[in-house]
Amino acid sequence: MAQHLTEDCLFCKIIRGEIPSCKIAETEKSYCFLDINPLSDGHALVIPKYHAEFLHQVPDDILADMMPLAKKVALASGLDASQYNILQNNGPLAHQVVKHVHFHIIPKPDAKQGLQIGWPQQVVSQDDLKATLGRIKEKL
Amino acid sequence: MAQHLTEDCLFCKIIRGEIPSCKIAETEKSYCFLDINPLSDGHALVIPKYHAEFLHQVPDDILADMMPLAKKVALASGLDASQYNILQNNGPLAHQVVKHVHFHIIPKPDAKQGLQIGWPQQVVSQDDLKATLGRIKEKL
Repeated sequence: MAQHLTEDCLFCKIIRGEIPSCKIAETEKSYCFLDINPLSDGHALVIPKYHAEFLHQVPDDILADMMPLAKKVALASGLDASQYNILQNNGPLAHQVVKHVHFHIIPKPDAKQGLQIGWPQQVVSQDDLKATLGRIKEKL
Repeated sequence: MAQHLTEDCLFCKIIRGEIPSCKIAETEKSYCFLDINPLSDGHALVIPKYHAEFLHQVPDDILADMMPLAKKVALASGLDASQYNILQNNGPLAHQVVKHVHFHIIPKPDAKQGLQIGWPQQVVSQDDLKATLGRIKEKL
């Protein structure tokens, strides 16, 4: 079942059942449980059954499994009648704490609860955008 | 190619090529392009070639396609040597503006640029968590 787990990682231990969790659902490749320090009621995490610190290290077939599971849980949580954010953080500056990839499903019932977002938009020119595009496409 | 698009949606028009975009990559089911008002250099969007306002309305096979594309773009953007957030917002309170599902890939090069996150954690009891778990599992 579990594919690529480590000894010491908190989330690998949760997947193996060595640490208890409020498990909502799982598939062969992913596991979903409630965050014990929620930003709002129903705050859940979807994690791969594959130990990787960052999204870009997770095999495609496992990544592909995670959003359908998030959708299933969002529907069971009643979020089709509410609002919510999906968030996945890579690196401490980007607000990652546990070093095992996790997607947060965070209900947004009102302005005070749930994820708080700041959006410092930049003004860029078409030339700036084209330079960035060229840089990325070169490495695709 | 494009599967379920609408006439008037901005992102549907971008997918159809009626509105120009800085396209990075596409698959049969998803499309990735640069955000024209980036939070940081390289800020990109991955969108389904299926018009839906919210994540829970997107068919599973299309949802499954989006994170592998995000990973490919993250790697080409050099984010394996940096930090970044993946964010998808559902509803205006949750910071959604364009009403076509989109995953932001937002590089976090430093504290000032990129996504700003506030994290108003709640203190909840095991009983609270179990009640929430019961409510969700009933509808799974």
